[in-house]
Amino acid sequence: MNPRQNLLTLEDWRSAYAAGAQPQALLGELLGRLSPTDPAWIARLDQAGLQTELARLATLDPAKAPLWGVPFAAKDNIDAAGWPTTAACPAAAYQPTADASVVARLRAAGAVLVGKTNLDQFATGLVGTRSPFGEVPNTFDADYVSGGSSSGSASVVARGIVPFALGTDTAGSGRVPAGFNNLVGWKPTPHRLGMQGVLPACKSLDVVSVFALTLGDAGEVAALIDGPDEGSPLPAPPLRPAWLPEKPRMGVPMLPELDTVLGYDAPWRQAEGRARALGAELVPLDFTPLFEVAALLYQGPWVAERYAAVRELIERSPEVMDPTVLEVISQARRFSAADAFDGRYKLEALARAIAPMWQKVDALMVPTAPTHPTLAEVAEQPVARNSALGRYTNFVNLLGMAALALPGGFTAAGLPFGVTWIAPGGADAALADWGRRWEQARLAEGDMVLGARLRLASPSDTMLRQLPASTPTLALAVVGAHLQGLPLHYQLRERGCRLLARTRSSPHYRLHALPGTVPPKPALARVGAGEAGHAIELEVYEMPLEQVGSLLALIPPPLGLGSVELEDGRWVKGFICEPAPLADAPDISEHGGWRAYLASRALAGTNT
Amino acid sequence: MNPRQNLLTLEDWRSAYAAGAQPQALLGELLGRLSPTDPAWIARLDQAGLQTELARLATLDPAKAPLWGVPFAAKDNIDAAGWPTTAACPAAAYQPTADASVVARLRAAGAVLVGKTNLDQFATGLVGTRSPFGEVPNTFDADYVSGGSSSGSASVVARGIVPFALGTDTAGSGRVPAGFNNLVGWKPTPHRLGMQGVLPACKSLDVVSVFALTLGDAGEVAALIDGPDEGSPLPAPPLRPAWLPEKPRMGVPMLPELDTVLGYDAPWRQAEGRARALGAELVPLDFTPLFEVAALLYQGPWVAERYAAVRELIERSPEVMDPTVLEVISQARRFSAADAFDGRYKLEALARAIAPMWQKVDALMVPTAPTHPTLAEVAEQPVARNSALGRYTNFVNLLGMAALALPGGFTAAGLPFGVTWIAPGGADAALADWGRRWEQARLAEGDMVLGARLRLASPSDTMLRQLPASTPTLALAVVGAHLQGLPLHYQLRERGCRLLARTRSSPHYRLHALPGTVPPKPALARVGAGEAGHAIELEVYEMPLEQVGSLLALIPPPLGLGSVELEDGRWVKGFICEPAPLADAPDISEHGGWRAYLASRALAGTNT
Repeated sequence: MNPRQNLLTLEDWRSAYAAGAQPQALLGELLGRLSPTDPAWIARLDQAGLQTELARLATLDPAKAPLWGVPFAAKDNIDAAGWPTTAACPAAAYQPTADASVVARLRAAGAVLVGKTNLDQFATGLVGTRSPFGEVPNTFDADYVSGGSSSGSASVVARGIVPFALGTDTAGSGRVPAGFNNLVGWKPTPHRLGMQGVLPACKSLDVVSVFALTLGDAGEVAALIDGPDEGSPLPAPPLRPAWLPEKPRMGVPMLPELDTVLGYDAPWRQAEGRARALGAELVPLDFTPLFEVAALLYQGPWVAERYAAVRELIERSPEVMDPTVLEVISQARRFSAADAFDGRYKLEALARAIAPMWQKVDALMVPTAPTHPTLAEVAEQPVARNSALGRYTNFVNLLGMAALALPGGFTAAGLPFGVTWIAPGGADAALADWGRRWEQARLAEGDMVLGARLRLASPSDTMLRQLPASTPTLALAVVGAHLQGLPLHYQLRERGCRLLARTRSSPHYRLHALPGTVPPKPALARVGAGEAGHAIELEVYEMPLEQVGSLLALIPPPLGLGSVELEDGRWVKGFICEPAPLADAPDISEHGGWRAYLASRALAGTNT
Repeated sequence: MNPRQNLLTLEDWRSAYAAGAQPQALLGELLGRLSPTDPAWIARLDQAGLQTELARLATLDPAKAPLWGVPFAAKDNIDAAGWPTTAACPAAAYQPTADASVVARLRAAGAVLVGKTNLDQFATGLVGTRSPFGEVPNTFDADYVSGGSSSGSASVVARGIVPFALGTDTAGSGRVPAGFNNLVGWKPTPHRLGMQGVLPACKSLDVVSVFALTLGDAGEVAALIDGPDEGSPLPAPPLRPAWLPEKPRMGVPMLPELDTVLGYDAPWRQAEGRARALGAELVPLDFTPLFEVAALLYQGPWVAERYAAVRELIERSPEVMDPTVLEVISQARRFSAADAFDGRYKLEALARAIAPMWQKVDALMVPTAPTHPTLAEVAEQPVARNSALGRYTNFVNLLGMAALALPGGFTAAGLPFGVTWIAPGGADAALADWGRRWEQARLAEGDMVLGARLRLASPSDTMLRQLPASTPTLALAVVGAHLQGLPLHYQLRERGCRLLARTRSSPHYRLHALPGTVPPKPALARVGAGEAGHAIELEVYEMPLEQVGSLLALIPPPLGLGSVELEDGRWVKGFICEPAPLADAPDISEHGGWRAYLASRALAGTNT
């Protein structure tokens, strides 16, 4: 047995170091396994490079470097100082002097870059075959494509060589390879991450993506590289809450395109069933407007963005380019600047028409890809086979949305089937939170395996230790008419709150029924030091900070918002009351809460 | 004397109707004065049209139609059902079947469209001479240009023919003509107003603008037409508060370009002095990055947006176009779709570099135009003379900013001099609030005249009755450490609050000093019914609603936010306190407020 075969996840690596293993040994052994004939790699760390990395690790405090000694890979369109960037086009290679900002953040956290990975040239493709460094085979069946353009990054994670890898995603490059290799693919909201040092494919749409075996690992890496860089040309999009509703409404394609020959229909039906079992309501949607957006990407002027990115090369020596990539990008010559503006208007109009969709559903749920071609099929029809793969990915970045690709089971033939959730921009954390529910359901089914059948998943694999950032929130305790099922609860629902806990206050409170209030309301009053009090039933909600003001505006005197001590000793914000009206407000503390008091009154009412 | 010569402002028109005048009479007389040889008009309401309008007015309730019977004009690139839209190019004229949404809103408010006005063809120009319908002369000196492209709209307002007119503004077309004709020009934040039914000039940048004699009238019209329309392709930009700081920091050009031959330096210095007297701190800024943005408009690919707007015409029959406009727009042929994307990157990078400016200043203050050419000068150098006019206007819409052009006095030769304030997008109402201060200062100087010396301004002319929308706010009363000059006041300043009133509570409160609080804090407690109380000194602040949550998060128990009754009987939100700690907190009500109490303690301290 290979001595480090069991080092798959971040926790595996951290445990090994905690148990005394040395990076020299673990990483040295890993280097020996990075095969020069493996088409997943364009460049690999060598012994000299390892020594430099070990020296760097020695300067970092492992307690403050959460990825200390953890190896990772980066797609070869992402700069790393000391490594050439080729974008799978050797003629266009250059030697960057600085790390891309995402790489710099990972290295500062102690992670060790062990290789640059293969890709569809200039990140133009979803197959993983458009590269002079070779076609990357699928990790489950070498007759099939790995998916691309982040082909190598997906391959090395799925095979357990590194616990995570960076990709990029413009049209689906961070999702399709995740789906084809049983991986988690986090595709952040566009402009959320710093893109400094990432070679543009289609600059206004590119994002850095993360491949990992588990959502927990993807979330941790996402949190580490989250946020724009200083010189980012666009402001980061606004953040949203870190949760979907308890019972989310999920838009699914009315007529999902699925390769029935491959048997994609069975795992899709299974995925729908699992989502329903998790409380989701599936809402069939007409995806036509989304597909119209997607058409702008290659059949419209956005292809000129790809041209702008490689302009000098394509005009100087087009012959050095991959012929399919050259063919695709050359389409740009058809488009004038006026066409580019027309395309923008068309996108804006479509985006506007699509936006109301988010009133009807909280997220979209789609097959990551509708089919999975073999290498031979792609060789025969390089453009058509590729295009088919982007059905459920191409529109996402044009619309500024966030997406999360997760393993969704297997076909009868044993090929992985991926499911992707898509949410409005800024809702990355909410997708992760839903993903946690999804992974836990899959774990409970007992056959969840990591990557290319590396091992069965364990409960710790489905833990979400960290999340990308979400909108700031406040914990707010409610004791009266805002409790679930009571007349003012809708004020919390309208503000997108989520229930954190049903609990009680510390035993230092009294509850009074405020006379003459409509709807009837109680008042919570903390007793003085040494006075006897009660623990009062309450519910704690998480509320976006920006919503608090509009709630306060609705609260009539003598009530207000202050601080409340919970049973476990924590303080949260919550409803308080001014002193004077309490004198005439009956003490109903012995009921233990407003609901019990109301029930007692109802009972009394029926007795009258 | 002309019977309606004194009907200049909205109030003038409303007063006339309130006094019993009939629209048939007032508007009929007006029609007689719309000269067919006046180059400001492209089309005028005729007698048949007037009868239709009168019939329409009869169906409206004047009490619910704030502009009932008030005439207005619209630039002839804005659709009005029943009127052809020419954009000053008869060959491109079409007959719209519906009003532009801004026109529909005004008509619904009872306003009567009496004419479509001349413009630089396709709104391409800042001079008012590029039109087959004739050059529009300046209303102060017919040797000089009116300014454009909204030349006719400015001209008919400055001459008192209509109280207000709609223009459009892409590069300065709503500001330069305002400056040259002693008018108010409101240039809204891009994408704030519905653009349905407005013929695009440069679609991503165009806005509808308002010309009026007074800021009050401009503000009222702005409020009426505010807001995007249903089919608007882009979401409206976020709103900002309706105020600048009491002592705003205003960025001024480090080396302002001013035509000293025309004597523009004297009124600019006077404007600077007036702004300082109003409390503004003038901060000289290097405008180079703003000028680099401006260069993208005509020297970069944005000219292709103009091409996209007239593509069919320019490709079919370029000979029907104004030769200068044709020359300008034809530049677009140089730009490919890839160039358009490159231009977008350049703009994004510049916008990012410029954004930190808003940490240093609250607004920019600039000459509306740096010079004012004669018609002869423009005829001789049609492109160069035009370009010079956009120095302080061209960059604004590309950066999504709001602007307000106001009359700023006169040159020694009696030509008007305009001053423009520019603020971040969404701050339209804040600019109007500052403009009110500016107009009141000019009124106090005693020589403020309306339009083309129609009459001296009166105090009622400087009243702002309505404003475009701003971010929602909450009135919040503070009584302790948040008072001005006290330790926690910065929490209000950081949240962009403004002082609404220094006043007292109703006489139903007691003030207690909370023992052991750091910094020392009082607690306001409303007394019970019938109990004796005091009026307590407080300050009421206006706080953006979205900021309330982060303030609440900072408030420790036993304090909180609830409701407080003011001396005048109004209720606002404000600091309240839980009951229990009051028992041990000395009643300091007799001091009348926290400041007086602190002063008494300081005094006692020195006596010790």
